[in-house]
Amino acid sequence: MDWPAQVTVREVGPRDGLQAEARILSTEEKVRLIDALTEAGFGRIEVTSFVHPGAVPQLADAEAVLARIRRRPGVIYSALVPNRRGAERALACGVDEISLFVSASETHNRHNVRRSIAESLAGFVPVAELAAAAGVRLSGYVVTAFGCPYEGDVPEEQVERIVGAYRDLGVAAVYLGDTTGMANPAQVDRLCRLLKQRFPDLELGLHFHNTRGAALANVVAGLQAGITVYDGAVGGLGGCPYAPGATGNVATEDLVHMLHEMGIATGVDLDRLLAAARLAQELMGRELPGFVLKAGKRSDLVRSVQARQAAREAEG
Amino acid sequence: MDWPAQVTVREVGPRDGLQAEARILSTEEKVRLIDALTEAGFGRIEVTSFVHPGAVPQLADAEAVLARIRRRPGVIYSALVPNRRGAERALACGVDEISLFVSASETHNRHNVRRSIAESLAGFVPVAELAAAAGVRLSGYVVTAFGCPYEGDVPEEQVERIVGAYRDLGVAAVYLGDTTGMANPAQVDRLCRLLKQRFPDLELGLHFHNTRGAALANVVAGLQAGITVYDGAVGGLGGCPYAPGATGNVATEDLVHMLHEMGIATGVDLDRLLAAARLAQELMGRELPGFVLKAGKRSDLVRSVQARQAAREAEG
Repeated sequence: MDWPAQVTVREVGPRDGLQAEARILSTEEKVRLIDALTEAGFGRIEVTSFVHPGAVPQLADAEAVLARIRRRPGVIYSALVPNRRGAERALACGVDEISLFVSASETHNRHNVRRSIAESLAGFVPVAELAAAAGVRLSGYVVTAFGCPYEGDVPEEQVERIVGAYRDLGVAAVYLGDTTGMANPAQVDRLCRLLKQRFPDLELGLHFHNTRGAALANVVAGLQAGITVYDGAVGGLGGCPYAPGATGNVATEDLVHMLHEMGIATGVDLDRLLAAARLAQELMGRELPGFVLKAGKRSDLVRSVQARQAAREAEG
Repeated sequence: MDWPAQVTVREVGPRDGLQAEARILSTEEKVRLIDALTEAGFGRIEVTSFVHPGAVPQLADAEAVLARIRRRPGVIYSALVPNRRGAERALACGVDEISLFVSASETHNRHNVRRSIAESLAGFVPVAELAAAAGVRLSGYVVTAFGCPYEGDVPEEQVERIVGAYRDLGVAAVYLGDTTGMANPAQVDRLCRLLKQRFPDLELGLHFHNTRGAALANVVAGLQAGITVYDGAVGGLGGCPYAPGATGNVATEDLVHMLHEMGIATGVDLDRLLAAARLAQELMGRELPGFVLKAGKRSDLVRSVQARQAAREAEG
């Protein structure tokens, strides 16, 4: 198997993670977490959402968060945007990327935003115009791209159609969301190869939730299909309140740990990311599901065992 | 990517899982669990261990367990065996397979069995003779094949050397153990391809622990390298008390769920396996780490959501 030398890991915990947590963090707490993620070296962080505060009270302080985080030059700080009003708010805050979202299944889209897919896509046109006028990067999520909790299987042609609509809108990237952890590696391989062939110039990213434990397995399939952009949420924060049975995104530190062990560079400082994961755990006041957060890095295991042995031998 | 049409999943929870649990099940409880696993359709179940009862009190009732389980014809019921004495006990119980074990790292082997690797291998010769005389299948584990908590990286040549020693003993299969969850998919791919090329006629199996969340990712790499035998422990039971930082094997039902979703047959009835996992959870009296145990199958998610919707529409 051949592996890419480098991939981009997008940290989406401050948005996709926090929007699904019962506990609402203060603006101050969110800023601490995002600053810790910037310190960890991510090149892209999705920091908040400009959906209606009534729908997602967890992220009602989007403006305040964006005003107070310490932005490192070169890092792309993005925000989720549902419509023209959201785009105006986001642009007023100086976001670096606007991310649109629409479900690949009609039923999920209606449940999520009370619109048909066609209505969602039509509503994106003025957003794309605003982003273009402002010179701000535009991207789009395909939600439930690997299966819908209401409809079950989602036809690949439906995903392809939506990616095509995004391409026509002029997006720089499309992120395929496995919102309720329904993807499997064979499906990831098929869909990604199809889309890469159909849209060779479009950046494709993968966004897996770890609901059934297969998120990193799906990443392996994605790597083999040539995808080099992956999302994670620090600590494994979150889920999706609109999708029954959903659990959090794959923990970013588990993803980065696996990639580094494979010899794939991410530019992320894993120790600092683990510090951010411990901070996230402390802020949420509950144990987060990340594995490396509990077990430590592979290299730490060896070091701690060797230290214990040395201590024992010194005693003996 | 091409995938095998079918793979063999070995259930090792009654041995590798239970030996690492603090709570010791009664013989009656173990028999219930193993019978439930037989009902789930496994073709191979590792049921117990004939190591010294002082070393593993959890499995001190090996004879009683083997005497009382309901054996389905055709199923291979195997047991772990450390030496000649263990082999005699196992053969007296009519086991279908004897599994030897030696670590790929000297330090781990000394910690585990207080012998050098050479001493372990020499001790296997009379066991192999006993097994051959009895016409019983013989196999061998390479423990810490993907990394050692004491020594760190384990050279591939060292694993190759031990697999070669097993081959010379006449084993039918070698199981590569990732005892403390140190494997990564790139490494799995490299090592498996090397060993398959070197030992084309030997059955190779993979035994992953999910310590750092990458067990199913490693399975994907194994599938691509042509490996068709995988271990799991029902519910994600267990770990390894001799390996610091270890957690349980990958949950068998998570493995089977992923394989079935990929269109790969296992012969296992996933619903019955999930019933066995719930039984294991009840018997252990704690939440087990399996994902599908909590989230349910992908298909259940859709069905339960559709049922709730239908109920709501009927009300409305």
